[in-house]
This record gives sequence, structure tokens and C-alpha cells, in this order.
Amino acid sequence: MGEETNPAARPVAVFDSGLGGLTVVRQLLDRTPGEDIVYLGDSARVPYGTKSPETVRRFALQDAAFLLRFDPKALVVACNSASAVALEALRAMAPVEVIDVVAPAAAKAVEMAAGRPIGVIGTEATIASGAHRRAIESLDAAAELLAAAAPLLVPIVEEGRGQDDPIVLSVLTDYLRGLQRARPGVLILGCTHYPLLARAIAKLMGPETQLLDPGLAAAERVEAYLRQNGWLNPRPRGKLRCFSTDNADRFARLARRFLGRAVDQVEWVSVEEVMDASRGVANR
Amino acid sequence: MGEETNPAARPVAVFDSGLGGLTVVRQLLDRTPGEDIVYLGDSARVPYGTKSPETVRRFALQDAAFLLRFDPKALVVACNSASAVALEALRAMAPVEVIDVVAPAAAKAVEMAAGRPIGVIGTEATIASGAHRRAIESLDAAAELLAAAAPLLVPIVEEGRGQDDPIVLSVLTDYLRGLQRARPGVLILGCTHYPLLARAIAKLMGPETQLLDPGLAAAERVEAYLRQNGWLNPRPRGKLRCFSTDNADRFARLARRFLGRAVDQVEWVSVEEVMDASRGVANR
Repeated sequence: MGEETNPAARPVAVFDSGLGGLTVVRQLLDRTPGEDIVYLGDSARVPYGTKSPETVRRFALQDAAFLLRFDPKALVVACNSASAVALEALRAMAPVEVIDVVAPAAAKAVEMAAGRPIGVIGTEATIASGAHRRAIESLDAAAELLAAAAPLLVPIVEEGRGQDDPIVLSVLTDYLRGLQRARPGVLILGCTHYPLLARAIAKLMGPETQLLDPGLAAAERVEAYLRQNGWLNPRPRGKLRCFSTDNADRFARLARRFLGRAVDQVEWVSVEEVMDASRGVANR
Repeated sequence: MGEETNPAARPVAVFDSGLGGLTVVRQLLDRTPGEDIVYLGDSARVPYGTKSPETVRRFALQDAAFLLRFDPKALVVACNSASAVALEALRAMAPVEVIDVVAPAAAKAVEMAAGRPIGVIGTEATIASGAHRRAIESLDAAAELLAAAAPLLVPIVEEGRGQDDPIVLSVLTDYLRGLQRARPGVLILGCTHYPLLARAIAKLMGPETQLLDPGLAAAERVEAYLRQNGWLNPRPRGKLRCFSTDNADRFARLARRFLGRAVDQVEWVSVEEVMDASRGVANR
């Protein structure tokens, strides 16, 4: 695959359950601005974080199979829930480097915490998986991790509530109570939606706790991988091509909040086509 | 289809995006206890209420096609969002009576309101569709309708928060503010999850507003249809067979809160199989 194409010219593929992964793309645009990015948001089946590991794994494999058609030089799993439960299956299936958002965040958190406790908030699926715990303990067996599921934060962000909304503040206060008491050195924002609440979370956690956006950690990992292989695209600015399994106009309208700027192009792709891509891979 | 089967013995089919439709099944078990019920909860793709009309329509047609395999005597669209945007397509496709949750609720609301304003709360998709407005205006052109989208209520119920939880109360207060001022005679709980918050909603709306569970209105419609055709199953108690596109154990565990009792049996069915059922119908 791609043997005749200059690897630098090949795109970086990114997927998420919906729009949230655009916060990861935002970090990629900062760190690796020359890359062409192909993004798939599975908005028709969003969210993944409330579903069983088996279902998330199936959907993630389908999303990846669809993106492999674009012959990417790397595949970024921008969804924390998919990173937490599907990474092994994705690595077994994809013929390219797979970069997730859990392991890079765990490594960066251990470094930033410098021995102080580490906190993580995420969806039900992410927290129940224990993926952050395993990743952190493999790096520092003595690390103290405090994890909290925060299921309402995704719908709250998707509803468009601001960071000063009293409901946002009372929900955050409820979820962060235990973490505040532990005074962690770092708090991993373990869901792509949470960076949009970073200011409110920082205020509640206080100045002793640094917030960590896994999108940044993943983008650094992508940059290091491409640089190491001589595959960085040297152009000043690449193209961002987005696919959504739900209505493309809605995706385009909401995307700006996650990406920090308008998206160039959004195309609709049916869930059927995404699933058929996966059947194709299975039959190969 | 079903020409050789005694219609009374055929099941009633019910679908929803997830577990919520079990509040409709609960009303059916009260009104038509002798019926066998086949239920499909599309938990792998839940929710529908945040998605585009096109996507909800596609999913609803697939769900219906799957259930038609069981040769039902009636098909109940327990999902308000699917009722709001997919009813016409479902009626065009299904060779049996299709009973939704919007029209029966609208008719009952007009009757109960007796000229006072009517309120409705629902998902984004349901409220944006204007389906309640159209249904109510067709019955009473002078009726005053106040509609409010309440997107956080579904995830709040699914998180398992109780009706006395301060966050539940502040979210409800936020959504109901405009409705409280209008003092409607009836408030339609236009999403299958909302009956689980009925006590808190009733308290906020005050004694002048009666709450209407569309599941009850739909169950009355089903009973009337079966009775009229001589198709009521005379047995004292039928069987409830549930299918979930996500993990069956999780469905069974959470079902009790919606149904008011344990479910007898839950089977997993893959999204692929549900979609293939629809392809089969399209090719017929």
C-alpha cells in the first residue's frame, strides 16, 4: 500500500465518534501544519463513551477501515473511548502506525506530575476500561491515579452551554469534588469534548493542578513519528477534509467550536459505506 | 404475510433508539397484558434525538424492517424523535398498522387541555420537527402550543440521577422556566425518558398542569386498534422478548428502571443484521 507514493505526501487520518476529535486536529494543525488530514466523525452513531467495549471496538474498526482507503501514513484514534478499548484490535488490523490519545497522555502526565497524584476524567467507557491506570502504572508503578467518570459533560458541551453557565459549574463541581480534595499535580482531560470546558475546570481545580489535553500529547507523538521517518510534509499548510456519517451541514456548523476555525470541507458518508469498508478489509 | 396465522396470536412490535421505549411497553403491559411483545432497542446507535431527520429516518426504517420479520399485527414507534420525522416513511414501508407516540399524545392533550395552553418538551430532533405543532393544529387550529427542547434530560436519566438530585432540579428549572410562566393545562412528556422525572416535573409545573405520558396515549391507541379488529390476545399474560444492538447484559440491567420490573429475556442483535433486514425489504 502506498509503495509508489512519496510518504510525506500521504495524509494523516483521524477519527472520532463525532465532532470532539477536532480538538485533536486543532493540535495537529499547530504542530504539523503541512499535513493533509482526512477526518471521519461518526456523528450518526455518536457517542461511543456510553456503549459497551464490544460495540465501540466494532465501530472503531469500521471507521479505521474507511480511512485506510485514503492510504494514510498514520492513523490517529482521536476518541478516548476507542483508544481505551479498541487499540489492540486497531493495531492488528491497520498496516500503518496507529497513534492513540490514552498512552501519549499517560506518558506526559507522569512526567508533568513529578510524583504528585494524577487525575483523569472521562466517559463511562473510558473510565471503566482502566486504560489510563494500566498505561500510567506501566510507566510508574508508584503513581497515584484518581479517575472519575463524567457522563454529562459531552451532552453539556454539545448543547453549547458556556463555561460560566451555572448548570455547567454545578455539574463540574459535582464530578470534581473527590479530585479537588486529592490535589493532583495533573488532570487528564480524558475526552475530546473537555478542552472546551478547560477554563471552568482549571478554576475549580485551582493553580496546583495543571490540565492536560491528550490531543496535544497525541499531536506531539504524531510529529515525532513523522519527523523520525522523514515523512513530515514540508508545505506551509495542508488540507483538512472531513467526513461525517450524520448531516454534513450540521457538522460544519458545530465544527468551529471544536476546531477554533471553520472547516474547509465536510462530506457526508453513510454508515453503510463505513461498514462496507470494514467488510472489505475482513475479506482481504 | 401472516395470512395463515391467527392474528390475535401475532406479536406487537415496538422499537426505540434505546431503553426509553420500555416506558411505552410498560403502558402496553397494563392495557394489553395478553400480547406478546417483540422490542428492539437500538442502543448501539442511541440517541436519535440529537441527529438529523435523514439519519433518524434511515435508522427507523432499518429497525422496523428487522421487527417485521416477526410478523407483528401492529408496529409501535415508541421513539418520539422517530415518530416526529419518520412516520410517513414507516407507513409507506410497513404492511401493518403503524402506531406512533406523537399523534395519540397530541389528540389526548387537546382533549385534556380544554382550551388552555399545551406544553411539550422533547429532544432537539423532536422539537425542531414541529410534529406536535402540526398534529395539535390539525385538531384545534386555535390551540396555543409552547415547545421546549430539553437535550440534557436523556443523559441525566441514563446516568441514573434521582429526582431529588440538585443538578436534576436546576436543569429542569432551566428548561421549564418559559413553560411555567405560560401555565399550560397539559404538558406532553415528549421523550420516553421523561416519565422517569415526572414527579420532579410535576412539582415544578404546579397543580394546574397535568402531565401526559405519550406511552399511555399510544397504548390506548394499540388497545383500540386490536379490539376493533378482534385481534386482542385473550391470554392473561404475554411474553416480552427484547433485542438490543448494544450489550444485552447492560440492557437487561438498566431496563428495570424504565419498565418497572425485570425483563424476561434480552438478546443481542448486531447493527449489521438490523441494516441487512432493511436491505432485504428494499429488494423485495
